[in-house]
Amino acid sequence: MLEITSAENRNIKLYRKLAASGKYRREEKKFVLEGTRLTEDGAGRLDTVFVTPEYLERHTVPECGEAFLITRELAEKISSTETPQGIFAMCRIPDCPPVPKAGGRYLLLCGLGDPGNMGTILRTADALGIDGMYLSGCCDPYSPKAVRSAMGSLFRVRLREAPAGDVLNELEAAGVPSFASVVNRDALSVTEADFSRGGAVLIGSEASGLPKELADRCGERITIKMSGGAESLNAAMAAGIIMWEFTKMRNSECGMRN
Amino acid sequence: MLEITSAENRNIKLYRKLAASGKYRREEKKFVLEGTRLTEDGAGRLDTVFVTPEYLERHTVPECGEAFLITRELAEKISSTETPQGIFAMCRIPDCPPVPKAGGRYLLLCGLGDPGNMGTILRTADALGIDGMYLSGCCDPYSPKAVRSAMGSLFRVRLREAPAGDVLNELEAAGVPSFASVVNRDALSVTEADFSRGGAVLIGSEASGLPKELADRCGERITIKMSGGAESLNAAMAAGIIMWEFTKMRNSECGMRN
Repeated sequence: MLEITSAENRNIKLYRKLAASGKYRREEKKFVLEGTRLTEDGAGRLDTVFVTPEYLERHTVPECGEAFLITRELAEKISSTETPQGIFAMCRIPDCPPVPKAGGRYLLLCGLGDPGNMGTILRTADALGIDGMYLSGCCDPYSPKAVRSAMGSLFRVRLREAPAGDVLNELEAAGVPSFASVVNRDALSVTEADFSRGGAVLIGSEASGLPKELADRCGERITIKMSGGAESLNAAMAAGIIMWEFTKMRNSECGMRN
Repeated sequence: MLEITSAENRNIKLYRKLAASGKYRREEKKFVLEGTRLTEDGAGRLDTVFVTPEYLERHTVPECGEAFLITRELAEKISSTETPQGIFAMCRIPDCPPVPKAGGRYLLLCGLGDPGNMGTILRTADALGIDGMYLSGCCDPYSPKAVRSAMGSLFRVRLREAPAGDVLNELEAAGVPSFASVVNRDALSVTEADFSRGGAVLIGSEASGLPKELADRCGERITIKMSGGAESLNAAMAAGIIMWEFTKMRNSECGMRN
């Protein structure tokens, strides 16, 4: 296996550029993965893998286009964690958009800016069996921080970035009812909404909520009713509770995984 | 107002030590707050406040023991964010433990290590009206990162750090039923648990769950049933969904706040 020792190596520079730039990730249709679990989850999509000699003593190199040996110093330089496991990969972005159909359960996030929340929502959507997620004007789900909190769910949740208006058109055409999550006393409690025919739930940003024109286009307006003192839930938590209610009927019918 | 310009100033050094050391926070029974919202939430508990001249142009100094003017350079040095708002405070840790009583709803977290999750759980507990939270072997809820994600809920949620065994003794003596959150196909779905008499829900760490001896002491074992692909929910999300089910009856009776 060829060894790379210099941070000026072309492949190392590509890796770092993919880690740093969302624009570059979109152009190249690639993103970066780090660690054993994530590179295993990415199997079949890995173009380039870098491993340290220490890593190779205990693991094998996953199937990939090409693999390079790198020094521990270099691993520390390109890692986004303080104690790198010693494996890194450039991975092709999955091209696996949701397929809107009646009865399905979809999420449309609008303007979500925090990559940690983005990853947590993806992980939760995966756990609860959401059929697909649409992102409109959100942060990049393939940034290292989002990837880290999504824990491999990026490879399992059908995902598409598209303007909310276009997505609503498609969902309507497919006969999928839409629910706008709003902060409004008069909206329907999420516990009382009729999710029996599936649907798409729209969730806006923590700071500004859903744009009014989007909320107005939805068939129903739902909200989380709370008794306590905090003014709001964190965006990921609000999305998680809504997804929980949204998928509950389906989840209560099946076995459990946690 | 006295002006501080040196990072070697005694008060500045105290602030930085409180920000950095959990041990020191416990000894001093103080922690640090940053930003307008958090220092407002801490009103009545602020010992020392630092503000920049720029901050003073648009805000007043909150009630506190003593206030100092600091330079913007110094503010950038002590801030835990990249764009400091210009106000910082050393604040007394609230001494407001839960009061266990029949019908109350409590949370007992065991071994939770991530300060971001800790803060998110506190914020969610506050929003959903949990009557008190106990922490056993967890990370420090007063670290800057936990404080930031708790968003002021530290001042509203009754909180106590104590060994789980002692807490269970007290809860039992007060007639509070206990529920262990576990990862087990045979446990009761959280949607089917009888929370009508309130209770205490025990939640372990994401990596290792609840210690068996604690789970065995609880009257009921509950779990989150899921259909999807992710192997688990993030610790804060799991706690949030459990709290949601746990407090739902109470929350559905009242008005809403989000």
